[in-house]
Amino acid sequence: MTANGRSGYSCMDDLKSHPLPSIPRSLNVRSVKREMKTFAEASALSFYKPAAHVCFWAPCYKNTMFGTYNAAVMMHLRFDGTFGFPGGLINRGEDILDGLTRELKEELAYNPAVHKPITYDDYHSSRIVEDKLLVLHLFVVELSMDQFVSLEKNATSAEEYGVEVFGTVRVPLYTMNNKYGGLPAFLNNRFIGCAKQELIMALFSIGILTDDQIDELIDNANNMKLAPNRM
Amino acid sequence: MTANGRSGYSCMDDLKSHPLPSIPRSLNVRSVKREMKTFAEASALSFYKPAAHVCFWAPCYKNTMFGTYNAAVMMHLRFDGTFGFPGGLINRGEDILDGLTRELKEELAYNPAVHKPITYDDYHSSRIVEDKLLVLHLFVVELSMDQFVSLEKNATSAEEYGVEVFGTVRVPLYTMNNKYGGLPAFLNNRFIGCAKQELIMALFSIGILTDDQIDELIDNANNMKLAPNRM
Repeated sequence: MTANGRSGYSCMDDLKSHPLPSIPRSLNVRSVKREMKTFAEASALSFYKPAAHVCFWAPCYKNTMFGTYNAAVMMHLRFDGTFGFPGGLINRGEDILDGLTRELKEELAYNPAVHKPITYDDYHSSRIVEDKLLVLHLFVVELSMDQFVSLEKNATSAEEYGVEVFGTVRVPLYTMNNKYGGLPAFLNNRFIGCAKQELIMALFSIGILTDDQIDELIDNANNMKLAPNRM
Repeated sequence: MTANGRSGYSCMDDLKSHPLPSIPRSLNVRSVKREMKTFAEASALSFYKPAAHVCFWAPCYKNTMFGTYNAAVMMHLRFDGTFGFPGGLINRGEDILDGLTRELKEELAYNPAVHKPITYDDYHSSRIVEDKLLVLHLFVVELSMDQFVSLEKNATSAEEYGVEVFGTVRVPLYTMNNKYGGLPAFLNNRFIGCAKQELIMALFSIGILTDDQIDELIDNANNMKLAPNRM
């Protein structure tokens, strides 16, 4: 058993008996479980393309005037303008951990020797995306705060920085006194006050976007809101 | 006149005659202009608390498989979980540029000697937030790409990293072929696929949030959606 009470999985085959993890009540209500598969079920979906992603986290204690958090958790802004976890598609025939490590090197300049190698012990759960024939494997990896900070600092030197990755962020893990600031706002995710308008004005002023391009941009953004949201 | 055609403002007093900038048609329709003030009007609002923010940008040419962008534009994730521009409140009696520079040092480890000092030439516009009695001054500052990258790299070493700032990002300045990915998605701002659910599951699994806390978090996030959105 590892420190967090999970049994040790030394290789992929051992994961075959890994059960579905318990999930928060609120997500159960939202039928998230319908998309979850055990590793054995997920691996049997031979026509599905596998991908693997990592939630890197480190225990810490940070008491700020805005809130207190007990862990640093990493997410990043992707090339497509959405927040996600580092990782990506696994090549055909490639071992999941090898593929994941390859993606992390490209996206974060992750170095297993410095930042701790990922093992099947870190496996959390798998989910399917029916319409895209994708199987997504999630790993949750505990780092020391030193390892975490080193990963943050390295990130802008990664080969894919500015290509696949547009910035790493630390999730603000507290709720401010106004009940919204911090994690609830991050989950919604929003711009502060007029920052979104200011961004568009700045792009216009710099000359990066013309009036017509901004019209089209806002149309596209509004059309996207009509598409189904997964939460 | 500077390279971008604006007249040179050597000091704050010269800004008194600065007109409202032209703004994109779409934002005009949305009556953004109602909240804009000239610098002279904004400065006369003596009961309003001044703040100043910066849109740092650098010309570049990056051609990726996802899209092409001609500029790197910096935003950051704030302590309250929203995207915004670096900067902050100016103290009573403090010069706007001094206050802005102070905030940037704290938030980004910005160094005027390395990253170029900000001047009143970089002033873009002012806006008021009536209900909070705030005047927001926006500066748009052109850096070289070297200066921009240096700022990105320094950011995690800033005093306020993990306190006021939770990460800097480069705005993805293109629209992908699917019409949504890139800037439209960033403006909406979203999580990819199931990443939001995965984040909550990971926090639950690590033991950072209990079932009850997650219920409350989702309630707070949903309540926030009912609040007026500024765009």
